[in-house]
Amino acid sequence: MDLVPLNHHSEAPLYRQLFEQIAEQIRSGKLGRGERLPATRELAGQLGLNRATISAAYEMLESHGLIAGQVGRGSFVIGRRTSPGVDWDGRLQRNEAGTVAPAAGKQFISFVVSRPSDALFPLDDFRAACAAVLARADLAEILQLGSPSGYEPLRRHLLEEARKEGLAGSDDDLIVTNGCQQALDLIARVLLRPGDAVAMEDPVYAGLKNLLGGMGARLVGVPVEEGMDAAGLRRALEREQPRMIVATPNFQNPTGTTLPIGAREALLEAAHSAGVPLIENDPYGELRYAGEPQPALKRLDRRGGTVLLRSFSKVSFPGLRVGWALGPRALIERLRQAKEASDLHTDQLSQAVLLEFAGSGRLEAHRERVRAAGRERLAAVLNACRDFLPAGTRWTHPEGGMNLWVRLPRPWDAGELLTAVQKRGVSYLPGRYFEVSRREPGALRLSFAGLEVDRIRQGVRIIGQVLRELREEAAEKGEPVPAMV
Amino acid sequence: MDLVPLNHHSEAPLYRQLFEQIAEQIRSGKLGRGERLPATRELAGQLGLNRATISAAYEMLESHGLIAGQVGRGSFVIGRRTSPGVDWDGRLQRNEAGTVAPAAGKQFISFVVSRPSDALFPLDDFRAACAAVLARADLAEILQLGSPSGYEPLRRHLLEEARKEGLAGSDDDLIVTNGCQQALDLIARVLLRPGDAVAMEDPVYAGLKNLLGGMGARLVGVPVEEGMDAAGLRRALEREQPRMIVATPNFQNPTGTTLPIGAREALLEAAHSAGVPLIENDPYGELRYAGEPQPALKRLDRRGGTVLLRSFSKVSFPGLRVGWALGPRALIERLRQAKEASDLHTDQLSQAVLLEFAGSGRLEAHRERVRAAGRERLAAVLNACRDFLPAGTRWTHPEGGMNLWVRLPRPWDAGELLTAVQKRGVSYLPGRYFEVSRREPGALRLSFAGLEVDRIRQGVRIIGQVLRELREEAAEKGEPVPAMV
Repeated sequence: MDLVPLNHHSEAPLYRQLFEQIAEQIRSGKLGRGERLPATRELAGQLGLNRATISAAYEMLESHGLIAGQVGRGSFVIGRRTSPGVDWDGRLQRNEAGTVAPAAGKQFISFVVSRPSDALFPLDDFRAACAAVLARADLAEILQLGSPSGYEPLRRHLLEEARKEGLAGSDDDLIVTNGCQQALDLIARVLLRPGDAVAMEDPVYAGLKNLLGGMGARLVGVPVEEGMDAAGLRRALEREQPRMIVATPNFQNPTGTTLPIGAREALLEAAHSAGVPLIENDPYGELRYAGEPQPALKRLDRRGGTVLLRSFSKVSFPGLRVGWALGPRALIERLRQAKEASDLHTDQLSQAVLLEFAGSGRLEAHRERVRAAGRERLAAVLNACRDFLPAGTRWTHPEGGMNLWVRLPRPWDAGELLTAVQKRGVSYLPGRYFEVSRREPGALRLSFAGLEVDRIRQGVRIIGQVLRELREEAAEKGEPVPAMV
Repeated sequence: MDLVPLNHHSEAPLYRQLFEQIAEQIRSGKLGRGERLPATRELAGQLGLNRATISAAYEMLESHGLIAGQVGRGSFVIGRRTSPGVDWDGRLQRNEAGTVAPAAGKQFISFVVSRPSDALFPLDDFRAACAAVLARADLAEILQLGSPSGYEPLRRHLLEEARKEGLAGSDDDLIVTNGCQQALDLIARVLLRPGDAVAMEDPVYAGLKNLLGGMGARLVGVPVEEGMDAAGLRRALEREQPRMIVATPNFQNPTGTTLPIGAREALLEAAHSAGVPLIENDPYGELRYAGEPQPALKRLDRRGGTVLLRSFSKVSFPGLRVGWALGPRALIERLRQAKEASDLHTDQLSQAVLLEFAGSGRLEAHRERVRAAGRERLAAVLNACRDFLPAGTRWTHPEGGMNLWVRLPRPWDAGELLTAVQKRGVSYLPGRYFEVSRREPGALRLSFAGLEVDRIRQGVRIIGQVLRELREEAAEKGEPVPAMV
């Protein structure tokens, strides 16, 4: 055994220091299974220690299952590192990413998941689109190994649409991905190294935090007012020198806010001055229920620094994983390589079906219905907040999308409130799932798009009721109570 | 302008040194767009240089598009770096991964891609499976946002099948992925950090090299004889301490070789002794055309160190991206988190269709047809090699799968040969696409499964002919000539 001298001035007792040194040697494999430890008397002499100290260390090693004594023979190493096999727990400890709470079951009025209502799915139109694809002469090609860039007819269609909308310049290209989420993943892979900073809205949806955090990126939050705050972004660019910026300018998740045109220009200018790529994550842009559409950052950007991410998921069928990234050719080529390395290509059956669904006009018809329903649901949640939430509560006023951000008055904690409202059959995600660096204990997200109007109203009513009851309880106990009407 | 003194003893002429200093200031943004450069006379005086030197430097700046002269006003900076924006090329230089040559067009007899023949796709059976899914009462659920673990009925089906085959123990779990490739990607994400070593067969298929190389892993090649060599693996484990091992025990890509039972036990023992996870990549296992099936490593492993990857792609429709990973619950849980971060979940339409295709017995019927065709094609490629390739050429003798490994006698180079055979309408991938650390310039992969028997025979015949012609040419020129009958 190769021991370093013990520290007689340490707070840790000598026997524990000795235990830790020997345990480390066993765990690292320096002391192999079956090796005999020196007798306590012998080691005490070598180290100039009391024999009782050695005995205490050996006892501790034995109680940790690292050594075993054999009568008349001494103590032998039996530690698990010497029993071969994979230590999965040890290997998996690092890179721990946060996970989102499971969505509540159907018995709940669940404001948890930002997704469309499946009751609105146009199943007959979907079946018709599938039938058209299945009848095609090139069906075998659709089922064969495809291109990392995407199913070519879909890719071409999306690029043409983008050109018509003034989104795609002559230097741009497009790649089909498994939804916006994979586009973010691929972009992060080609642009980031562990430790690189990324600027993003704060609060931001958990999927982005988990993705980038899991890659070892530093998350730099930029406050959200009406979308990402341009002055905040400029400060973040100066201080943290992020490698990229991710912004959701339309109906941002979780706040539901939209970036006004002036702020869009300011954001672009800030990104360009710093020479930092701007990733425009736009899954919700087509779900506008009121007000005027704002031009995409990608459209305003004449200097090729923006990448636009869109998806079929939020406006049609989230179970089909098809989105796309539009940006400078040099980047898209690298995304193609990363896509091929990651999963070869996006599922072609779904790509062909969604192209048929879009090209036949069924998507636009469906979008109209989704927007009509969204308009009613948005009105319902805003009215319910006004009618049922106690005074002092504030909430955002989105003009589209799926999410609303509610801020309870101090000292309410949205996490504690959740425990209480879940007992009454209502659930949502508290603000902590979305926070980057600013704590907002009183904030919560209401994802309203998947719920029918009466369920929305009932759910918010229950939240309001529970708040009032908790307030009364607190008042009875003499605890601090938020101001309420 | 802030210029450092020029070096009069340098080999670079003074005007070029001056050009480079100013160009750097323009590119870095120190000299902004629109800034006026000093007049040549003025700068010559400041620097104590001949005015012609300054003029030459300015002309060079102008020819590089960095400045422009305006009559009567002087020279102004117009360089692009001073118009701020994203330097994509600079950002994308790192992490460059190799890419696979594009597959040859249909006019080629292409041995390039390891994929099934789409002429064998049972399109009517596929349509019937789709029709059954589209008629289901839970269709809307299939189209709704799903679980990162996979479409639950498919996940359960696969896990039950794995239990029946003795592959899944009580501590195992299963996650559905976008084919084996994504399973490898997710495993690498949770187990590796940049710089970690991974042991793999050498040669190995390019998709694995690109994936792991792109992540910054060190690739440690283990020689392939009949599959991965166990003694070679033990040496690699000692020397390189890899964080994981990836092996394809059945019909390895590119060699087509299969690991015998004894070598399987030896591989497992080596992995276990080192405590290193063993990833069993098995996309081809069900495509056995001759001989006896070998038990999966996952089945032989009683100590939970193996993860088994399988896929529907190679045995049914590669355009549908559905595979799975079976392994210890702790790992699968982390893969679930990584999957959610990466792309939320695998496409559910394809999962539901493939479950229907498998559960209805259509998959097994199709597999029988694929095996029958594969048997003929394997025989055809082996016979053609025997009949047409020159003496001294060696090739593997697979019992299944899609690939054959051919080694030309020295000094043939399979890359140079490719140029010649492509002119005759035949293509394949030369060995360099597959090499990890051992160079095999004379090696090439023939992917035979996607070609009909007569095309296989014709293709190999052309390769043989070209080899003979090249040999005659070389002999005429007096160049070294490989021994041939």
